[in-house]
Amino acid sequence: EATTDGIDLAVVAGDGIGTEVVEQGLAVLEAALAPSGTKLSTTEFDLGARRWHATGETLTDEDLERIKGQDAILLGAIGDPSVPSGVLERGLLLKLRFALDHYVNLRPTKLFEGVSSPLADPGEIDFVVVREGTEGPYVGNGGALRVGTPAEIATEVSVNTAFGVERVVRDAFARANARPRKHLTLVHKHNVLVHAGHLWRRTVEAVNAEFPDVTTDYLHVDAATIFLTTNPSRFDVIVTDNLFGDILTDQAAAISGGIGLAASANINPDRTAPSMFEPVHGSAPDIAGQGKADPTATILSVALLLDHLGFAAESARVHDAVAADLAARGAAVRTTDQVGRDIAARVTG
Amino acid sequence: EATTDGIDLAVVAGDGIGTEVVEQGLAVLEAALAPSGTKLSTTEFDLGARRWHATGETLTDEDLERIKGQDAILLGAIGDPSVPSGVLERGLLLKLRFALDHYVNLRPTKLFEGVSSPLADPGEIDFVVVREGTEGPYVGNGGALRVGTPAEIATEVSVNTAFGVERVVRDAFARANARPRKHLTLVHKHNVLVHAGHLWRRTVEAVNAEFPDVTTDYLHVDAATIFLTTNPSRFDVIVTDNLFGDILTDQAAAISGGIGLAASANINPDRTAPSMFEPVHGSAPDIAGQGKADPTATILSVALLLDHLGFAAESARVHDAVAADLAARGAAVRTTDQVGRDIAARVTG
Ligand SMILES: CC(C)[C@H](C(=O)O)[C@@H](O)C(=O)O
Ligand SMILES: CC(C)[C@H](C(=O)O)[C@@H](O)C(=O)O
Repeated sequence: EATTDGIDLAVVAGDGIGTEVVEQGLAVLEAALAPSGTKLSTTEFDLGARRWHATGETLTDEDLERIKGQDAILLGAIGDPSVPSGVLERGLLLKLRFALDHYVNLRPTKLFEGVSSPLADPGEIDFVVVREGTEGPYVGNGGALRVGTPAEIATEVSVNTAFGVERVVRDAFARANARPRKHLTLVHKHNVLVHAGHLWRRTVEAVNAEFPDVTTDYLHVDAATIFLTTNPSRFDVIVTDNLFGDILTDQAAAISGGIGLAASANINPDRTAPSMFEPVHGSAPDIAGQGKADPTATILSVALLLDHLGFAAESARVHDAVAADLAARGAAVRTTDQVGRDIAARVTG
Repeated sequence: EATTDGIDLAVVAGDGIGTEVVEQGLAVLEAALAPSGTKLSTTEFDLGARRWHATGETLTDEDLERIKGQDAILLGAIGDPSVPSGVLERGLLLKLRFALDHYVNLRPTKLFEGVSSPLADPGEIDFVVVREGTEGPYVGNGGALRVGTPAEIATEVSVNTAFGVERVVRDAFARANARPRKHLTLVHKHNVLVHAGHLWRRTVEAVNAEFPDVTTDYLHVDAATIFLTTNPSRFDVIVTDNLFGDILTDQAAAISGGIGLAASANINPDRTAPSMFEPVHGSAPDIAGQGKADPTATILSVALLLDHLGFAAESARVHDAVAADLAARGAAVRTTDQVGRDIAARVTG
């Protein structure tokens, strides 16, 4: 945890554009912390495709132990086409989320002034998705038999527990309760996935008693994609499972200016392990190393990091600097560095 | 199967607006068949909320046997808030799809002339989703333990077989091969759902050998929602699993004018049982009985039905009549009946 004597930050730049955007995220973080004299100590962790190619390792127990000793993690992006699909996702990114009990995957969506939406009439877009991060179809519970034969069978098991659902639902209610509109939408598919869906639904009903001021509604995941297209203003807080949250937050990013702007926080609300902050986008190997990546999503993730560590004023400064930068963006194309420098300058003031 | 002596059609009007839209679908079907003198014999099946309330039955073995004797099924909509979630979906709608081996759930998406899209710059939208219909997370393989206690656990198992995946992938390739662009996009999430995802991926690669003219690409489901927002023209044929297909086809409907226009066919390509044609929308109890429902999705589903039964010219007439009606639609609001009558008049010519 953050103390007055500074922040110990694990930096996992990762693959592709990860390095470039994290560099700018760190510069903005430094700028935000400078006025208070808060010391930032960073420890870089060499994790991702290069490490895997060199050693065959994704995330060792030793890596994990060292990461656990930090106050927070800033992650760029993980993944490269040269690594078989699933190896780094399951062995590194999801392993971090699961091992550090990041049960709240927080993904705010806001259409900032100056940003154009692909929707003709987007209205005001300002909602947050609370995506469950440690259960559902992401648990890795499944397998395959007779692989490569005509008799192959492959299963994927979505595991949902009262323990796991209740804690994330309670977190989502608390967030809704702290927002002006105080509205929570559960998204699931309880007419088909009846067992999991009914657990989610009953849990929302039960926890609602603790937050009587919060209004709730329910949407099937398919209907949610319609409303994200036709009326995104209807959303305030969305709570949903790991897979539905993955899908909806990419769509949410698309309607609000693209994944270049979409921030996320993998939060352990009980603070038994460091939380992790990362842009929603991937490693984008096609544009890596060219200074073309937009570091804004990472910088907004830094704002979430600051807020989580108790630096509310600093978080607001970063957020406002991004908003001002976006409002002033014209047609001119800037490099990754330039965007980072411009936002850092606004933070410094 | 359809023979020269006519079509035996099972009609499941179902709940809510189902009755209203099916009435118009049937009127258009009659109009399309009249010139050839093809006899249409309809058998109504009382299935849905009313039947369940009255008898506790969803779909009996006897119902199913009688339905199996028909050439095709026209279905309106199933579901009512008065029935516990999942009862009619699992016990009736999905039971029909599974029992009749509707492994190709075909959902064409087209932005017709005269229809406005919520996207600012939709471009040309003309693709078809081939959604698997008999496997995946829809199999109903899951359960719950210690329900209602803090120790509750609920699982949902996605079951995927080489048999099931290969047949739907082959169907999708054949459809892509018959289209001008000959492009197939597999949508899955193989970096997380590695077992199922790799089966799908390997199957697409293998079946591609049978269709060398078809180009393919792959998108994770989250990325697919982005492209459906920013560049839907990139899609020609999408093949995907049951749940991802459910989600993507609602989003596809939203970008192309809404679920009032989205048709679907639940096809048994081996013709061992009747196929089923239904609008993508639900029973919409809030507007039921008011003549407000748009029957266009049902009428386009009738076009799919005609095509499936070998009435290609009649199918094209219905499709063209809908296109003409849509192109001529102004701001004037018409009732369900009026829309049906107008389209039927265009079919009659
Ligand atoms: C890379 C992948 C495993 C990851 C996920 O599915 O969670 C990504 O899509 C995300 O949304 O952070
Ligand atoms: C009603 C529901 C079971 C159904 C589905 O999920 O398949 C519907 O959403 C659809 O897309 O036809």
